[in-house]
Amino acid sequence: MDIVKVIVAGPRGRMGAEAVHLVHNEDHFELAGVLDRKHEGLSLSEIKGFQGIDVPIFTDIEECFRTTQADVLVDLTTPDVGYFHTKTALEFGVRPVVGTTGFSKEQLNELKELAEEKGIGCIIAPNFAIGAVLMMKFSQMAAKYFQDVEILEMHHDQKLDAPSGTAVKTAEMISKSREPKKQGHPKEKETIEGARGAEMDGMHIHSIRLPGLVAHQQVLFGADGQTLTIRHDSYNRQSFMSGVKVCVETVIKLDTLVYGLENILE
Amino acid sequence: MDIVKVIVAGPRGRMGAEAVHLVHNEDHFELAGVLDRKHEGLSLSEIKGFQGIDVPIFTDIEECFRTTQADVLVDLTTPDVGYFHTKTALEFGVRPVVGTTGFSKEQLNELKELAEEKGIGCIIAPNFAIGAVLMMKFSQMAAKYFQDVEILEMHHDQKLDAPSGTAVKTAEMISKSREPKKQGHPKEKETIEGARGAEMDGMHIHSIRLPGLVAHQQVLFGADGQTLTIRHDSYNRQSFMSGVKVCVETVIKLDTLVYGLENILE
Amino acid sequence: MDIVKVIVAGPRGRMGAEAVHLVHNEDHFELAGVLDRKHEGLSLSEIKGFQGIDVPIFTDIEECFRTTQADVLVDLTTPDVGYFHTKTALEFGVRPVVGTTGFSKEQLNELKELAEEKGIGCIIAPNFAIGAVLMMKFSQMAAKYFQDVEILEMHHDQKLDAPSGTAVKTAEMISKSREPKKQGHPKEKETIEGARGAEMDGMHIHSIRLPGLVAHQQVLFGADGQTLTIRHDSYNRQSFMSGVKVCVETVIKLDTLVYGLENILE
Amino acid sequence: MDIVKVIVAGPRGRMGAEAVHLVHNEDHFELAGVLDRKHEGLSLSEIKGFQGIDVPIFTDIEECFRTTQADVLVDLTTPDVGYFHTKTALEFGVRPVVGTTGFSKEQLNELKELAEEKGIGCIIAPNFAIGAVLMMKFSQMAAKYFQDVEILEMHHDQKLDAPSGTAVKTAEMISKSREPKKQGHPKEKETIEGARGAEMDGMHIHSIRLPGLVAHQQVLFGADGQTLTIRHDSYNRQSFMSGVKVCVETVIKLDTLVYGLENILE
Repeated sequence: MDIVKVIVAGPRGRMGAEAVHLVHNEDHFELAGVLDRKHEGLSLSEIKGFQGIDVPIFTDIEECFRTTQADVLVDLTTPDVGYFHTKTALEFGVRPVVGTTGFSKEQLNELKELAEEKGIGCIIAPNFAIGAVLMMKFSQMAAKYFQDVEILEMHHDQKLDAPSGTAVKTAEMISKSREPKKQGHPKEKETIEGARGAEMDGMHIHSIRLPGLVAHQQVLFGADGQTLTIRHDSYNRQSFMSGVKVCVETVIKLDTLVYGLENILE
Repeated sequence: MDIVKVIVAGPRGRMGAEAVHLVHNEDHFELAGVLDRKHEGLSLSEIKGFQGIDVPIFTDIEECFRTTQADVLVDLTTPDVGYFHTKTALEFGVRPVVGTTGFSKEQLNELKELAEEKGIGCIIAPNFAIGAVLMMKFSQMAAKYFQDVEILEMHHDQKLDAPSGTAVKTAEMISKSREPKKQGHPKEKETIEGARGAEMDGMHIHSIRLPGLVAHQQVLFGADGQTLTIRHDSYNRQSFMSGVKVCVETVIKLDTLVYGLENILE
Repeated sequence: MDIVKVIVAGPRGRMGAEAVHLVHNEDHFELAGVLDRKHEGLSLSEIKGFQGIDVPIFTDIEECFRTTQADVLVDLTTPDVGYFHTKTALEFGVRPVVGTTGFSKEQLNELKELAEEKGIGCIIAPNFAIGAVLMMKFSQMAAKYFQDVEILEMHHDQKLDAPSGTAVKTAEMISKSREPKKQGHPKEKETIEGARGAEMDGMHIHSIRLPGLVAHQQVLFGADGQTLTIRHDSYNRQSFMSGVKVCVETVIKLDTLVYGLENILE
Repeated sequence: MDIVKVIVAGPRGRMGAEAVHLVHNEDHFELAGVLDRKHEGLSLSEIKGFQGIDVPIFTDIEECFRTTQADVLVDLTTPDVGYFHTKTALEFGVRPVVGTTGFSKEQLNELKELAEEKGIGCIIAPNFAIGAVLMMKFSQMAAKYFQDVEILEMHHDQKLDAPSGTAVKTAEMISKSREPKKQGHPKEKETIEGARGAEMDGMHIHSIRLPGLVAHQQVLFGADGQTLTIRHDSYNRQSFMSGVKVCVETVIKLDTLVYGLENILE
């Protein structure tokens, strides 16, 4: 495999810093530079936490692409900045891999047209944790054969909202592959309100919150005499990095925009 | 250990039949006879499902005790019949082991007095599944050190009520060993009602219902950096038999009435 | 959907009896008759366990097909008998669904040719438990993204061989989608022999045996900061029936022989 | 409750630093000072990572105790230094809480005599993770009623030895409360060597190693129709701190030396 030349935008953010180290350490990737709001002209190795990573810092994206001749832009900034970066990258023939949930439908359509016009790949990923994406994909597949399913998500007790975004997304994906079904016994009743959890398209979602927990989800399917369980445990943010790696490897081979890791995992 | 002579009352019920086979098969137990509403004078071996178990069937409890000189009565009948059996057994110096939730406080007090007057043991057990009883006992112990706990109970989807009786009992036992604590983030909010489950003394209980499941419960404790989980899975009614066995072995050594297996397990 | 007319071969076996009830109870299936070694000319309703299921019993397969004009044969007999039934069915234009691991490569090739010549479907399934088949399929898919995996299988303690056939099959399927990898630390050492389990293509397989367990398997994938777990619990043989149902529905649409449920589940 | 005055020895170690913050943040504890090999005369607040914690650093233990009039010494140094600290503390009437596995039997006996002579408490704890200690304690209790048990421990793949020390300790504790039992079917056979794990007193121990995992252990008990599972998950070293807290609170009430948290948890 040829060496892939990569630019990381947002290197001082938590995700960005992990991405810098990932690209720097992978044999078949080369970190060609970083895009930052400040520190123009410095070497990244002069910034705390990046000792020994001697690549140029750019604040001007066009100069960055011209100078480095990069293949891929990994953007881990904000939606506003990210949209501008993505558009500029496509115009320069640089393939974007963007971690965001913040682009509008119009923006996604426009970027898709641009990617196809240029004939190059672009991946927009709301979630880089491959394990979580596979959990959702497998759940959608299993729902074709198991009509009954409940979702259990478990997080630390500092989390404010319940159910989690991933649980709702999972339920939505399951809804696409089964006919709506009101689960449980038709005459079931709660002796304490809330026991049966949140209902969504007939599915039940349960949210556990405890100190010590990080981010975990379990999807349980049941049928006569058997259950099938798909579970993802996320212990720290390194879990996102294997997804970034797969995206960089994949975006090179695409000629359009793909939204969501589930659409590039086979 | 001396051989323990046992009478089983209610041999044709589902629990009773299992108990007959248990007593018949244990080396240090001897099935001395059974108490039944009918079939007086027959051998149990003449009844379907009991081939080869040649012991007398009695309909008269006093005659049964006089004839067999039994040590222990295992009663798996109804609360009304069971109460009469238990009282008569104590009067005859036969130690009762009774599976029921149906005795009143007055009945329990009366039986306790009688047991102590006679100086013999008597065990009344609402639940013979040792695993379930240990789960509750351990949960109560753990709650002294882990303030945060959630209960997850999972049953087949033919179950009508949620949460299960065992889950409520577990929460009650936990409440005895911790100060009330409203769990979760003070500002947490449900974007779909019920997500955080049923609340009881600040604890949250979640009820999962799926075909394929039998009867399962998981108690999760969380603290900084760690979780402790205690889980019981019940697959079929044989799970009750190990509890009956422990009770027969224990009732011999007691000189009072004990209510609940948790009070005889060390 | 049109009503599918089904013949069940081997109605008095455990699997066969379940299949009879399944077909009898499904709205869009019709039980057209059964194939049995004996009881020629009787109605199935005269046989114990099948009260009320008034369909003819055949001992002659050709007469059975001619009389019933069946669409599908569900065969749950032995490999020898099953092979003859399958071949005859294909010749009569009846689509076979066969539960067996016992056909040779030559037999499978011959049957495949015959199915394609006739332009009709045929499904040979070593395992009808959809949950187990999905677990294996998902494991194979996940192994593309998670290089590290361990398999944990749990069965009752009457099982003689370890690891289980399903665990070995799962490992084989995983091996097809990842490059061989010796897992664990290169310098790891067992202070008690066997601690790290059985090794197969660098994967580790662990076999738990306990009374109370039925048949369970868990496939654990790990990567930086995350784990993905796929688990199947089989509680009783009803778990096979949903697979039989899917096969009957699917075989109607095929025009060749398919081996293994994993190849018809999407 | 009176405020407990605490000295922490080894404040710059990883455990020690956590302990400093714990004692500093607990309302009913007061950090009276720290014992360090260097930095005599400085305030702890001058050391990196302890901003705002203005307590004196001592290198001389006797001066430390005389100056601070402390109630408790939390020692998280090395076995050699810790032994000297513990002995000196007892002589000064300061109650020691020591995290170590490194004291010899002779040392423990000597310290115990000294504690009893002085009539004060002393706790030596090989493991401060309360969850892990409860898991072992509950396992020992459950083994009285469940003869069959398997241990499954799961760690990151940088761990060199298998099985883990905690798994072996758990097996030893279980062995104390059950008669030795060779588990599994007498005729069971491994088709791949190691499948049934490591054997210890008839129990089987299985060691899983995967990237992503931290430190987890599951103890499974099985009996007819049921299983009981006790599981501990440790995600980071904060899990040790709740044990330190319980020890400081408990050592005040003791008048002898106790070895192992399991002996102070009720």
